[in-house]
Amino acid sequence: MWADLEPVGRVASGGYRRFAWTREDHTLREWFTGECARRGLDLVEDRMGNQWAWWWEGPGSVDDAVAVGNSGIAIGSHLDSVPDGGAYDGPLGVVSALATVDQLRAAGVRPTRPLAVVNFVDEEGARFGVACAGSRVITGAMSAGRALGLTDVDGVSMAQALTAAGRDPEALGRDEEALARVGAFVELHVEQGRGLVDLGVPVAVASDIWPHGRWRFDFPGEANHAGTTRLEDRRDAMLGYADLVLGARKEAQLRGCVATVGKVAVIPGGVNAIPSQVTGWLDSRGPDEQQVRATVDELRTRAADFGATVTEESWTPTTRFDQGLSDRLRTVLASETELSVPVLGTGAGHDAGILASAGVPSAMLFVRNPTGVSHSPEEFAERDDCHAGVFALSACVTDLVTS
Amino acid sequence: MWADLEPVGRVASGGYRRFAWTREDHTLREWFTGECARRGLDLVEDRMGNQWAWWWEGPGSVDDAVAVGNSGIAIGSHLDSVPDGGAYDGPLGVVSALATVDQLRAAGVRPTRPLAVVNFVDEEGARFGVACAGSRVITGAMSAGRALGLTDVDGVSMAQALTAAGRDPEALGRDEEALARVGAFVELHVEQGRGLVDLGVPVAVASDIWPHGRWRFDFPGEANHAGTTRLEDRRDAMLGYADLVLGARKEAQLRGCVATVGKVAVIPGGVNAIPSQVTGWLDSRGPDEQQVRATVDELRTRAADFGATVTEESWTPTTRFDQGLSDRLRTVLASETELSVPVLGTGAGHDAGILASAGVPSAMLFVRNPTGVSHSPEEFAERDDCHAGVFALSACVTDLVTS
Repeated sequence: MWADLEPVGRVASGGYRRFAWTREDHTLREWFTGECARRGLDLVEDRMGNQWAWWWEGPGSVDDAVAVGNSGIAIGSHLDSVPDGGAYDGPLGVVSALATVDQLRAAGVRPTRPLAVVNFVDEEGARFGVACAGSRVITGAMSAGRALGLTDVDGVSMAQALTAAGRDPEALGRDEEALARVGAFVELHVEQGRGLVDLGVPVAVASDIWPHGRWRFDFPGEANHAGTTRLEDRRDAMLGYADLVLGARKEAQLRGCVATVGKVAVIPGGVNAIPSQVTGWLDSRGPDEQQVRATVDELRTRAADFGATVTEESWTPTTRFDQGLSDRLRTVLASETELSVPVLGTGAGHDAGILASAGVPSAMLFVRNPTGVSHSPEEFAERDDCHAGVFALSACVTDLVTS
Repeated sequence: MWADLEPVGRVASGGYRRFAWTREDHTLREWFTGECARRGLDLVEDRMGNQWAWWWEGPGSVDDAVAVGNSGIAIGSHLDSVPDGGAYDGPLGVVSALATVDQLRAAGVRPTRPLAVVNFVDEEGARFGVACAGSRVITGAMSAGRALGLTDVDGVSMAQALTAAGRDPEALGRDEEALARVGAFVELHVEQGRGLVDLGVPVAVASDIWPHGRWRFDFPGEANHAGTTRLEDRRDAMLGYADLVLGARKEAQLRGCVATVGKVAVIPGGVNAIPSQVTGWLDSRGPDEQQVRATVDELRTRAADFGATVTEESWTPTTRFDQGLSDRLRTVLASETELSVPVLGTGAGHDAGILASAGVPSAMLFVRNPTGVSHSPEEFAERDDCHAGVFALSACVTDLVTS
């Protein structure tokens, strides 16, 4: 499976560009369809186009099983990427879920509850700016209207992108039917940090997703000639922006958080023009909600000295995964493997977090990443650790679908 | 004339977008052609497409006059603008030159040397990044090959833009014939600073153009996830860039120079991605060449701490205008007006500077700008001061074409 995926959307950097409803995305969805068909799984798409491939041999249909209290177990992740992203973020979870089906069958497991492998669409938000769009729309965390109106850098709206990909924008919305089938969701994911490297173990269970948000800082200035305007006569919007960049690092460090300014827009943006407006986007997260808030408040105060306007574009409080489900995974892994299984928080958002917030019992498994690097071609997982991940996921799923 | 020009290329900000070989540029060139035809001037284009409109009633042709030592006097400027530029930078010089022809005729002046009104093409370099492209190409300061290969933000080369505008890229090159006709050039320009405001007078003569240059700073980093990467594990290219911005202001201030970072490019440029590369462009100028060099050297040293690569994209030493010609203008103005005529340096490049460096005796007149602001919709000149500029230019030209 890994060899099939390797060339799809690969770019010169060695990374990937796999954006929602592009040709690359279409190829990946076709590949997923083929893998599911080969395994005899029953593929259904929800109102957003997330792909759910069900293994259920009866009695009755999946919905029949759900109706009598045997709701399904879903495993999987996503296949899209950030710009120049790595090979593992997303695909490792989908491939491991498919391999888990193979493992269970090889072991002769007969599920008493339906099992689905899921491929969520547009998890990275690389094209339209909102992460986890696939799970947000079906849970109602994002309205269809807001989603359809989002635009990419070329000004193409999500509605237009869906239409161009042969999909129906009218279909979008919260999908009660799809959600009702899912009794629990377990997402396996490559770790995006060095927690497991430092601990020397291959697999962890997630505790929570850090509170995180995004803020836009607009610094005002006055356009003027870069050669002829005395320094004391200038109102240079870039100076406030530079203060934000350095301040973000310092204030986050003081409070045990992280803060990043990764995107900037300058008007007019000429080499010989003093900037009349600079907009910087701040991303901040951390294990403690109050500390993240305090970091951003301090940066607001600093930016006010430069006359900046600050807009909160998004804010997500701490997302806690299902305690009972997570404990159960740890118990299974402790008894089935000889490894200690640590519990780690994460600063990254995931579809599992969106489902958890929507009331679906959800949990995550992390697989060791020797570089600690993610969203980059450097992202990696050793083959043995990938196998350990599949083994862990198989053990957990066996327990869940046979109880 | 001012009313005709007012709507051409005007944008919502109240500023102008008049870029070389666009529809707006074509409209401006057609307007210039019409104004010259109305005055019976003989319009010729040089190899770059700069428009020269000659007033010469003989004996013989302009070239005949030049051949016997009566080389021409050229006055004028340019009609293109920077993005969201003001109405005066360029057009004030062209309109004043046309008005000067009218003034001389109204006063019954009979030139004994040919007089040209010139409209230089692509002075601002707003589209292809190199300022004064029109004068650089005909003087050979920039080769035709380099000019034709320059590209705009859409990847369109100057060669393609010329072809699309119905021009012949093959024609470009140093134009000996055009240069031989010009015995002297006087460019009138709105002041881009507050020198005349502070002195309380409407018109000045230029002494020199400050030494100036442009440097590209490439800061390296490592792409990584903005939420999951510990601060101590990061190599964030934005931090070095922010240090450059703040350092440029500080180091220039210490040395009596100006320095500006008005343009930046970030890779990958995602809100949740740590930048793997940030490129900033520094513009620095000042009255003293050594101090400008020292400012940039200090910034190089600071940037080296962040692993940056620094590339000098351009460097122009001090350009001195023709002393004899400038003195002559001051003498004429002192005798014809009751005003003192100060001599001011400038931090801005001009076609007059390119011609001066190419050995054409050149001088400039500045007209007071009450805002001091340029390259912005705020750029301004009072009507009375514009009239004072035309009067000054007329007095100078009368002296030059009748001696």
